[in-house]
Amino acid sequence: VARRLEKFKTTIFTQMSSLAIKHGAINLGQGFPNFDGPEFVKEAAIQAIKDGKNQYARGYGVPVLNSAVAERFKKDTGLVVDPEKEVTVTSGCTEAIAATILGLINPGDEVILFAPFYDSYEATLSMAGAKIKGITLRPPDFSVPIEELKVAITKDTRAILINTPHNPTGKMFTRKELDLIASLCIKNDVLVITDEVYDKLAFEADHISMASLPGMYERTVTLNSLGKTFSLTGWKIGWAIAPPHLIWGVKQAHAFLTFATSTPMQFAAATALRAPDSYYEELKRDYMAKKAILVEGLEAVGFVVYPSSGTYFVVVDHTPFGLDNDIAFCEYLIKEVGVVAIPTSVFYLNPEDGKNLVRFTFCKDENTLRSAVERMKQKL
Amino acid sequence: VARRLEKFKTTIFTQMSSLAIKHGAINLGQGFPNFDGPEFVKEAAIQAIKDGKNQYARGYGVPVLNSAVAERFKKDTGLVVDPEKEVTVTSGCTEAIAATILGLINPGDEVILFAPFYDSYEATLSMAGAKIKGITLRPPDFSVPIEELKVAITKDTRAILINTPHNPTGKMFTRKELDLIASLCIKNDVLVITDEVYDKLAFEADHISMASLPGMYERTVTLNSLGKTFSLTGWKIGWAIAPPHLIWGVKQAHAFLTFATSTPMQFAAATALRAPDSYYEELKRDYMAKKAILVEGLEAVGFVVYPSSGTYFVVVDHTPFGLDNDIAFCEYLIKEVGVVAIPTSVFYLNPEDGKNLVRFTFCKDENTLRSAVERMKQKL
Ligand SMILES: CSCCC(=O)C(=O)O
Ligand SMILES: CSCCC(=O)C(=O)O
Repeated sequence: VARRLEKFKTTIFTQMSSLAIKHGAINLGQGFPNFDGPEFVKEAAIQAIKDGKNQYARGYGVPVLNSAVAERFKKDTGLVVDPEKEVTVTSGCTEAIAATILGLINPGDEVILFAPFYDSYEATLSMAGAKIKGITLRPPDFSVPIEELKVAITKDTRAILINTPHNPTGKMFTRKELDLIASLCIKNDVLVITDEVYDKLAFEADHISMASLPGMYERTVTLNSLGKTFSLTGWKIGWAIAPPHLIWGVKQAHAFLTFATSTPMQFAAATALRAPDSYYEELKRDYMAKKAILVEGLEAVGFVVYPSSGTYFVVVDHTPFGLDNDIAFCEYLIKEVGVVAIPTSVFYLNPEDGKNLVRFTFCKDENTLRSAVERMKQKL
Repeated sequence: VARRLEKFKTTIFTQMSSLAIKHGAINLGQGFPNFDGPEFVKEAAIQAIKDGKNQYARGYGVPVLNSAVAERFKKDTGLVVDPEKEVTVTSGCTEAIAATILGLINPGDEVILFAPFYDSYEATLSMAGAKIKGITLRPPDFSVPIEELKVAITKDTRAILINTPHNPTGKMFTRKELDLIASLCIKNDVLVITDEVYDKLAFEADHISMASLPGMYERTVTLNSLGKTFSLTGWKIGWAIAPPHLIWGVKQAHAFLTFATSTPMQFAAATALRAPDSYYEELKRDYMAKKAILVEGLEAVGFVVYPSSGTYFVVVDHTPFGLDNDIAFCEYLIKEVGVVAIPTSVFYLNPEDGKNLVRFTFCKDENTLRSAVERMKQKL
């Protein structure tokens, strides 16, 4: 294995989902719904396959999807972008992250990450030869330590990577935090790469896109995907939006990482993105009900549950149950209780920082959530 | 744009396919069929979508596809591989190439390429910081200059990348050439990365997998895909097969480049790979008929047509028509004749080497091929 990947292990999602199957445990680990996506989107994919939309798509996206992405971005942020010159479709947001980083970051560039973070950020930064500087968001509110951030930014800082709503904590970056980050980026000529795949799962505050802040669009790459919003995580349709001088690098890296993305799924994604507002409202209502079941349940079990305002995740402190660290706790939980959670230490540069915290997802039907809570009540 | 990608332009396939649309030209450029894939495979995808196979697949492939890949590999090469430990599914062969190179090649490693080559090889080697050494295959027979190869291999050579049947030339590496390359690789402890996406389009000789040669499996990564064999280039299902110590790097890079590949398409791919032999025989018969139409037509038009024994491409010398180089010729062909071909100079480290050659594809229905020939007869 190449040195750039030596330190990385099998991703925790793969590990935990395999263990879930092996032990017949209820999987509240990896973030995929155990219910299906909407019929109208599935129908659109089936129609595209039947209609023979089965050959290579244009590398940066089928025109109708690029347009749908631009339209939704306008609706969400008020920003008007050129679907041909400022949008690139990718094979999921994970590829959008890889293409953005490999397309824009040079060896030696410093990039600032907020820990905990989705593991592909660190791995793709390592592939790009970037120097990673981590800033840790700490419980209970995971707010941005602005003074630390100010010190971390140097003349070699090329980009700050943010993720809001934030996986795994459910934190949403506040207007005030985003304003402060924005002003630091403008002052120091730093880019923002922002992963907003949970933007439609914002329960307690409005989602704010970094790109919509004054002066920020021109230095921001906004990443998003279909999977979370449409409960079709397996379709792997993502995209990047950025001004032409930035999207160029993303397009180039994408052209050589995957060339193009599944054609029939792209047509279906275009249909999905044009869903009426009522679709998004219902999704949110459903998830708020699920969240209430899980959060109340976890509290009743005895966890310290940290407030989550977005995403379909909550983070808890497991230490009331006396286990040494998050990995030991998750192993116990799978084997003795029959429930899968995700240990968070893998999402920190310093694993110690996450040793008290584990993540549960509530993207499961209500009965599954109730059964998981029941098992924990009985066996923890 | 990051330095690693600075020298690369919009891929020639995207450029040429856009021009085809703009000028209403017949597209014999990019290699995608203008006919549809088989009904039984499309039906399998539709069924998978209906059956709710729409959430994240296991990162390295849904088990049924890993098994189908291993079975087909056994049928084709006689080699028995563990579907769980020696196969990784990727988002097309382009991603398999990227994951293999980023997963196994370190900065400074020397990698040998045979020019002309598919453009992503060079770009992903550049992403990995590899030193590229090119060996040019020359017309009329594009045979491997073994003495040049011997000189090119040094103690810093990490891998040789081969592609057989070969895009763009249609050359198939002979048993003798493969044996010589194999013995050099074994002697110098060099890996082989072999792109065999056109293996089922072998018309004049049997396809030979490098991995099947004595002593070679343990040092070979074999790449393949669904698209060409099943006329579904837009589905983007590929895979890598290699012994555990090599596949590990590929899996890791894949986990962070795309994480997983479209779930319903993977189920359909598993069905496809289990097609009866008659499917492959018919495919070959169809393509031989198409090839005959194109090759006879191009000869009648006045091109020097180089023999192609596999793939759905033929390379011709365009100089009888008096234009300076391949790009000028292709522009003329699109604008004045209404036919798209692919200039080959972009597939060489030294573009001069390709300036007399352009590539045509015959993965189009027979009427389209005849119309293209007719246009050229009338206007060239
Ligand atoms: C490939 S897993 C992607 C992110 C996610 O779903 C998770 O964090 O569980
Ligand atoms: C993404 S284009 C892949 C290769 C091919 O089809 C071609 O060479 O035309």
